[in-house]
Amino acid sequence: MKQLQVLLVAGTHGNEINGIWLFDEWKKSPDLINTHGIQTLKVIGNPDAKKAGKRYIHHDLNRSFKEKSFLSINSLNYEERRASELVDLYGQAGENPCQIALDFHTTTASMGSCLVVYGRRYADLALASLIQNQLGLPIYLHESDQEQNGFLVESWPCGLVIEIGPVGQSLLNSGIISKTKLILETLMEQIHNVVNFNFLFPDKLVVHRHIKSIDFPRDEDGNVVGYVHSERQSKDWQKLKKDDELFLKLSGETIRFEEDEPYIPVFVNEAAYLEKNIAMSFTKRELWSFQQSWKQSLIDLIHQK
Amino acid sequence: MKQLQVLLVAGTHGNEINGIWLFDEWKKSPDLINTHGIQTLKVIGNPDAKKAGKRYIHHDLNRSFKEKSFLSINSLNYEERRASELVDLYGQAGENPCQIALDFHTTTASMGSCLVVYGRRYADLALASLIQNQLGLPIYLHESDQEQNGFLVESWPCGLVIEIGPVGQSLLNSGIISKTKLILETLMEQIHNVVNFNFLFPDKLVVHRHIKSIDFPRDEDGNVVGYVHSERQSKDWQKLKKDDELFLKLSGETIRFEEDEPYIPVFVNEAAYLEKNIAMSFTKRELWSFQQSWKQSLIDLIHQK
Repeated sequence: MKQLQVLLVAGTHGNEINGIWLFDEWKKSPDLINTHGIQTLKVIGNPDAKKAGKRYIHHDLNRSFKEKSFLSINSLNYEERRASELVDLYGQAGENPCQIALDFHTTTASMGSCLVVYGRRYADLALASLIQNQLGLPIYLHESDQEQNGFLVESWPCGLVIEIGPVGQSLLNSGIISKTKLILETLMEQIHNVVNFNFLFPDKLVVHRHIKSIDFPRDEDGNVVGYVHSERQSKDWQKLKKDDELFLKLSGETIRFEEDEPYIPVFVNEAAYLEKNIAMSFTKRELWSFQQSWKQSLIDLIHQK
Repeated sequence: MKQLQVLLVAGTHGNEINGIWLFDEWKKSPDLINTHGIQTLKVIGNPDAKKAGKRYIHHDLNRSFKEKSFLSINSLNYEERRASELVDLYGQAGENPCQIALDFHTTTASMGSCLVVYGRRYADLALASLIQNQLGLPIYLHESDQEQNGFLVESWPCGLVIEIGPVGQSLLNSGIISKTKLILETLMEQIHNVVNFNFLFPDKLVVHRHIKSIDFPRDEDGNVVGYVHSERQSKDWQKLKKDDELFLKLSGETIRFEEDEPYIPVFVNEAAYLEKNIAMSFTKRELWSFQQSWKQSLIDLIHQK
C-alpha cells in the first residue's frame, strides 16, 4: 500500500490569509498541528494573488479547475496555469500524488465554521459526516449550479472546503486562526481513525442543500441599487420565511422574500461574490441517513484499494 | 459674502465603498440627504483605486497631500497627481473653492463611529465639538506622528475624517451606510446652525489624543509572528492596563502590555495598517475645556471673514 497523502491548501484566494498564516507558522514549528501521523503536503493555492493582496490575478482560481483537456500550463491566464500546475504536482497522477484535498477559506459572511461539499461524492460525504459528528459543523452541499463550477477540490478523489467567517479580506483574526487549527486537527484525527479502522460514523447527516443564489437589486444599467437588509445581515443559517426582509434601497423601499417555501440563507453579503452577482445563496436543510457505501468509499480511498 | 461650499469625499481609499455607495444613491435621489441648504460638492477621492477594488494604485492617497511645492500634476505617481488635482479643483484657491472638507472612511477595526482630527486647528475642534455634543462620538486627535502625514483634510482650512467600523474592505453594510448618513446629516445641520449663528457649543470636549502606534511582533526578517490577542481584538476605546494581553504567537506565547501608564487603543487590527507596521494605536483620553477661540475660528471660516 502506498502511503496516504493529504493536500492542504490555503490562500486559494490570495486575500484569505488566516490559513496561510497558520501554515507559515506550522512550517516554523512542526509540532504546532497534530497530524496524528498523517502525511500532509501544504501549499499556497494562489501565491501571486497573495503577494498582490488580491483574491486572484486574472480569474478566480477556485473556478479554474476544469476538465484536464481545458487546462493548459501555457495559458496566458495565471489561474488556469496554476490550476494545471497544482494538478500536475499533487493530483492523483501527479508528482506527489494526494488522495484527499482540504482547501481552507474564509468569508466575510457570518457563517461561523462550516464545510462545503461539491456534489455527492461518497468519500466527501463520509469525511464530512465524521467531522460533523465531532464538531457539529453545518455542511453546505453545493450542487446543480451551472454558473459556478471548476472548484479545486473536485480535481481530487476526495476533497472538502473549510469556510470560516466572518473576517474581512486580508485581515488576520485570532478567532479565525484558532477555528482553522481546530478543524484541521480534527480532520487529521478522523482520517487517522479511518486509516486504523477505528471510526465512529453517525447515523444521520444534516445537509444544507444548495437551491439557488440571488443577486442584489440592480437598475437597468446593472448597477446595484440596494444592499442586504439589516434584518438579514449576519443571519446566515437562519430560516428565511415569506415576507422577511432581504434588501433595503436607500429610497427606504424594503425588498422582501416572496416565495411560500422557506429557505436557509448562506454566504449572506460575501464581499467577493458581488462580482458573481450573488448577494446570498438559498439552501434547504435536510436530514440524510448515513449510507454504508459512503463509508466504504472513504475506506477504499484511504487504504488505496 | 461668497457662498460657503463643503467638499464631501468618499473613496479616498478605493476599497472603502460604503460612502461611495451613499453618494451614488444621493446623486440619483437628491432628497436622500438633508443638507439643510448647505452647498456641497461630492467627489470620489480615488476613482482609479475604486475601479481596481484596491486601497490605492501607487501610494495611499490619504498620505499624499504634501506641501503644494511637492505636489505635481505631472507626477508618475497616480495618487500624487490626484492629490494635486483635488486641491486645484476644490482647494481654497481652486476652481470650485471649498472651505470645509469632510472625508468619509471605514475601518476593519471595531471603532464604531468616530471623528479623526489632525492637529489642533481651531475650526476643526469647534466643528468636532458640535458633532460630539449631538452624537456623543469619540474624537481621535492625530498629531505628533512623523511617520504619518499628508492627510487630505489638512489641505483645507477645516476638515474632519469620519471613520466607521467594523466593516471588511470592499463590503457594503447596511449599518455602516446608515451611520454614514446620520453623521453626514448631523454635520450639515450643525454647519447650517453656524451659518445662522444658532449653535450650541459644549463646555467640554473629550479627546483621545494619539500617543504612538505599535507594530505586530516580527522575526529578524521582518515577518509578522503574532496576531492581535483575542482579549484585545475588537476592544477599541477600552482601557489597556499593565499586563493586559496584546498579541498571541501560535507557539502559545502571549505578549503583554508592559508599560505602567494605561492607554486607550484605537484602530486595533485595521487591515490596511499592516503595511504601515501598525497593529494598533495608543491614545490618552483627555477632557478639554472648550475654547471661545475655536468657535470664533469656525464662525470666521464659515462666514468668510
